Amino acid sequence: MAHEQHQQLLQTLHECMTECNHCYDACLKEDDIKMMAECIRLDRECADICAYLEQAISRGTPFVSELASVCATICEACGNECKKHDHEHCQKCAEACFKCAEACRSIA
Amino acid sequence: MAHEQHQQLLQTLHECMTECNHCYDACLKEDDIKMMAECIRLDRECADICAYLEQAISRGTPFVSELASVCATICEACGNECKKHDHEHCQKCAEACFKCAEACRSIA
Amino acid sequence: MAHEQHQQLLQTLHECMTECNHCYDACLKEDDIKMMAECIRLDRECADICAYLEQAISRGTPFVSELASVCATICEACGNECKKHDHEHCQKCAEACFKCAEACRSIA
Amino acid sequence: MAHEQHQQLLQTLHECMTECNHCYDACLKEDDIKMMAECIRLDRECADICAYLEQAISRGTPFVSELASVCATICEACGNECKKHDHEHCQKCAEACFKCAEACRSIA
Repeated sequence: MAHEQHQQLLQTLHECMTECNHCYDACLKEDDIKMMAECIRLDRECADICAYLEQAISRGTPFVSELASVCATICEACGNECKKHDHEHCQKCAEACFKCAEACRSIA
Repeated sequence: MAHEQHQQLLQTLHECMTECNHCYDACLKEDDIKMMAECIRLDRECADICAYLEQAISRGTPFVSELASVCATICEACGNECKKHDHEHCQKCAEACFKCAEACRSIA
Repeated sequence: MAHEQHQQLLQTLHECMTECNHCYDACLKEDDIKMMAECIRLDRECADICAYLEQAISRGTPFVSELASVCATICEACGNECKKHDHEHCQKCAEACFKCAEACRSIA
Repeated sequence: MAHEQHQQLLQTLHECMTECNHCYDACLKEDDIKMMAECIRLDRECADICAYLEQAISRGTPFVSELASVCATICEACGNECKKHDHEHCQKCAEACFKCAEACRSIA
């Protein structure tokens, strides 16, 4: 079944969703929030698509490849934004995003 | 069917989701974004639960009442935050939130 | 803003989400549910991605085009399954799916 | 932060979401699908609310308690339906649902 073949991807998506949500939450508490606006926006886009794909795979969606392709694009964009910022939550998030983008591309 | 009984609620939920998402988007572009952090956070909470309940009703969920109760709480909180701010998007959002909170409470 | 440019698409996505959820709900109540299994599955996939894209556009996502592309694929697959079945809810759903697939492709 | 206090709950929600999605997928492939219609419906309701609450906690939602309360109700209903059926996926799902209902109630 799809969800068994994709066990590693599920874990990677989950970590990326978690890091994006933590980064989103932390950015909203930063003093320099004006600089973080795009990071907040992309964290949400990325957390939402990762959560979506994770659920879709676990219910046996026939569209893993198509969804993974768009997820890779969004993860990459979020990672590129996050890596610009020195906050630890941004750096951790960027790392999770790039790892997830690569995992998604490998099955897209 | 649930979705026919609840036609007015579906419309109200949809308008609230839309206004919250517009307010979220506009807040992220404001110069005084530091003041809008809680508004951004609550706009997302409110848009997400309204979208969730709207979909749940349209698929005939047996849990309309329970979900409407939590939706009312979140709409009320978001409306209370939005009405503090003079931006037009915040005022429109507050109005949509309070209308939706009332509609949700009436069936909760 | 994205959500204003895309007003017609938002309406089409919403109608497709609604028809898919009604068809899903109705299929689960059919006597010949065994024949409807793939329809139930695809109704869900399609309702979920349409609802997702609708929310994403209304919050100003930068990924309208990429998401619309995968949405078009899923709408088309759901429409192809639904049109095989004579139930009125399936025929209405197929029509909404094909209309939505076309709208999504036009901006993808 | 909310997501650190709730580490055990996040794990329990995730397992419940996963089991509900596997059960949903497996039910759609069963020969006796007519008997499984309510199970399919509740698996979806339960997977969706567990996934929703998991994401909400990880982004620091202020509404953990209210959302956990409705999640407990839905998990309990899904567990009660699943435990009626002898399929291994239903029995595993029932177990995950009851465990999750209890975890949600403890913080609601």
